[in-house]
Amino acid sequence: MKKLMNDVDQIVDEMLNGMVAAHPQALKRVDGTTVVVRKDAPVNGKVGVVSGGGSGHEPAHGGFVGKGMLDGAIAGEVFTSPTPDQVFEAIKAVDGGAGVLLVIKNYTGDVMNFEMAGEMAEAEGISVKQVVVNDDVAVEDSSFTSGRRGIAGTIFVHKIAGAAAEDGKSLDEVQQIAEGVIKNVKSMGMSLHPCTVPAAGKPGFELDDNEMEIGTGIHGEPGTERTALKPAKEIAQILFDKIHEDMKLESGEEIAVMINGLGATPLMELYVMNHTVADILKQHGLHVTETIVGEYMTSLEMAGASLSILRLDETRKKYLAAEADTTAFKR
Amino acid sequence: MKKLMNDVDQIVDEMLNGMVAAHPQALKRVDGTTVVVRKDAPVNGKVGVVSGGGSGHEPAHGGFVGKGMLDGAIAGEVFTSPTPDQVFEAIKAVDGGAGVLLVIKNYTGDVMNFEMAGEMAEAEGISVKQVVVNDDVAVEDSSFTSGRRGIAGTIFVHKIAGAAAEDGKSLDEVQQIAEGVIKNVKSMGMSLHPCTVPAAGKPGFELDDNEMEIGTGIHGEPGTERTALKPAKEIAQILFDKIHEDMKLESGEEIAVMINGLGATPLMELYVMNHTVADILKQHGLHVTETIVGEYMTSLEMAGASLSILRLDETRKKYLAAEADTTAFKR
Repeated sequence: MKKLMNDVDQIVDEMLNGMVAAHPQALKRVDGTTVVVRKDAPVNGKVGVVSGGGSGHEPAHGGFVGKGMLDGAIAGEVFTSPTPDQVFEAIKAVDGGAGVLLVIKNYTGDVMNFEMAGEMAEAEGISVKQVVVNDDVAVEDSSFTSGRRGIAGTIFVHKIAGAAAEDGKSLDEVQQIAEGVIKNVKSMGMSLHPCTVPAAGKPGFELDDNEMEIGTGIHGEPGTERTALKPAKEIAQILFDKIHEDMKLESGEEIAVMINGLGATPLMELYVMNHTVADILKQHGLHVTETIVGEYMTSLEMAGASLSILRLDETRKKYLAAEADTTAFKR
Repeated sequence: MKKLMNDVDQIVDEMLNGMVAAHPQALKRVDGTTVVVRKDAPVNGKVGVVSGGGSGHEPAHGGFVGKGMLDGAIAGEVFTSPTPDQVFEAIKAVDGGAGVLLVIKNYTGDVMNFEMAGEMAEAEGISVKQVVVNDDVAVEDSSFTSGRRGIAGTIFVHKIAGAAAEDGKSLDEVQQIAEGVIKNVKSMGMSLHPCTVPAAGKPGFELDDNEMEIGTGIHGEPGTERTALKPAKEIAQILFDKIHEDMKLESGEEIAVMINGLGATPLMELYVMNHTVADILKQHGLHVTETIVGEYMTSLEMAGASLSILRLDETRKKYLAAEADTTAFKR
C-alpha cells in the first residue's frame, strides 16, 4: 500500500487538521470531533445544511462547507459511517435556530446513524429534517445499501439546498427543494483501477490490465458488468444510456452535467469524457446549462469516472447558479 | 495502458474541446489551434499573460485562463513543447495593445519555442517579454532541461503576474513582478507511482511496490534518491530541508505554501501532507499567510506530491490575495 500518510489510525484526524490548517479563514473544526463547520457557524436564523459520511471521498464532504453549500460536514473513518454522536455534534454546531437539514447518501449505516443523531437533536429541541440521496442507477441494492446508492449527484443536493438555505428558505422549503434535486438527478460510474482502504492495506477488488468495471460503487462495491477496456465514447454511451433509461430525458430539456473523477483519473481524461458526453447530449437535443468537470466525490485513489445528469427547473437552475464559497466549489 | 480516451492522436484536441464545452462562458479556443484564451480576450490596454507547455499537466495551463491569471494557454502534445506558431497564435489572440508576457517553464524545448514565437510577434509589432520559471530545487540539470526545472511554483507566477496585469501594470512592471516571484519560489516533488504518456503506452519509469522517488520531475525525469516508502513526516522533512537549504528561510518570514498533487494522489493524502508540513513550518517560526492544497501542476496519473514555498513581500502578498476567476483557481 503506497500512501502519503503517517499512522493509519490517525489518517482522518491528520487529514482534518491539514484541511483546517489550509483554510483557517473558512473552516473550523469542532473540538474533539471529526466535524468541520464554516467559520461563522452557526448562522443565526438560517437553516443549517449538514452532510457527511465515511472519509476517502474528498473533497466530499468537508470541501463543500462554506457559504451557499454546507454548514458542516462529518467525517467518518475511511468508508465507514460517522457515529450518531459525531453527527449530533455537527447538528448542534450549525443550528442557528431555523433547524437543520441532513443530506444523507443512501448507505445503511449512514441512514441509521444520521437518523439517530436527528432524534437526539430533536430531543434537545432542534428541528431536524433529512433527505436521502440515491442517484446511482447502476444497481438496485448492494453490499452497503438497501435501494440505490448515493454518489456524485449528492454534490448537486449540497449546492442547491445550500443556496436555498442561504436565500432564507425555511427548513420545510429547503427539504422540499432538496427532494426535488434527488428525484431529478441520476448518476452512474465506472472504474479502471481499484482503491485501497488504509486499514485494509490491500485493494478492495482486482481488475486485470485490460479490464474495467461498469457501475462500480464509490466504495468499490460491485457494478453491473466487467468487460475489456473500451474507448471513452463507448463508456460514455453505456453510462448515458443507463441514466437515460431511468430519467427518460426529452429533447429540449435543460440539464446540468457532472463528470466526476474518482480520485486517480487525470483531468485530461475527464475532459475527454466531457467532450464525448457533450456529443451524446447534443444528439439527444438536450440543453446543457451547466457542466461541472473534476474530482468531487472520490474513492481514494480509484481510477474512473461517473456521469451525473440533473434535470433542471427554474428553482434548481437559480440555486445551482447562486454564489458558493467553499474550498472545493466556488462561484 | 488504462485511460479514458478515444484516439491517442486526438487526446489533446478532445481534451481542449471538452474543456471549452464545460466552460463556454469563460473560455474560447482559437480556431485551428491548441490555444485557449479567456472569453473576453484581448482585453484592451491590459498586458496579456500567456503560458503553456506540454499537455498532461492539467489543470495547467488552460485551467488558469481567466480574469486575474492567464489570458491564454497553449497546449502542446503530451509532455511536448507547443510549437512556435501555436505560441504565436496565443500572443496575437491576447494582445490588447499593452504587450504580452510569456511565462515559460524551464525546459529546453519550451524556452526555444516560446522565444521564437516572441520574436515572430515582435516582428509584427507586438511587445513581448518573457520570464522562465525554475523553481525545482531537486536537480541542477535533467534530461529535459539545462538548469533547474519549472514545476508547481509556476502557478504562483501565473497568479501574481496575472493579478498585476489586471491591476493595470505595464509590461515591464509585470515582468519585474513575475521575476520577483521566480526568485522567491522553490519547489520539490516526489513520486509513489509513475505515469504513462499515451503515445508511449507504458510507464516512463518503474517503482517497486515499496519504493518511492524523491525529486522526480513532472515528466518522470529522474530525481535525487530512490528509497523505501517513508511516512509523510519524513517525506515532508526531506522536501522542506532541500527547499530551505536553498531559500534560507528565517523565523518570522511570511510565506505562501502549495501542496500540489501530481494527478493520482487523493486529496486526503495531500491534506495529511499539509498537516505535516504545517508542523515543520511552525517549528521554523515561519508565518504561513496562504496555503494552497490540490492538483494544480500534475503529471497525468503520477502519484505523489510536491511542496512549493513562496517568500512573500507586500506586492506578492497583495497580488496573491487578489481576485482570480479561472476554472481551476478562484478567489
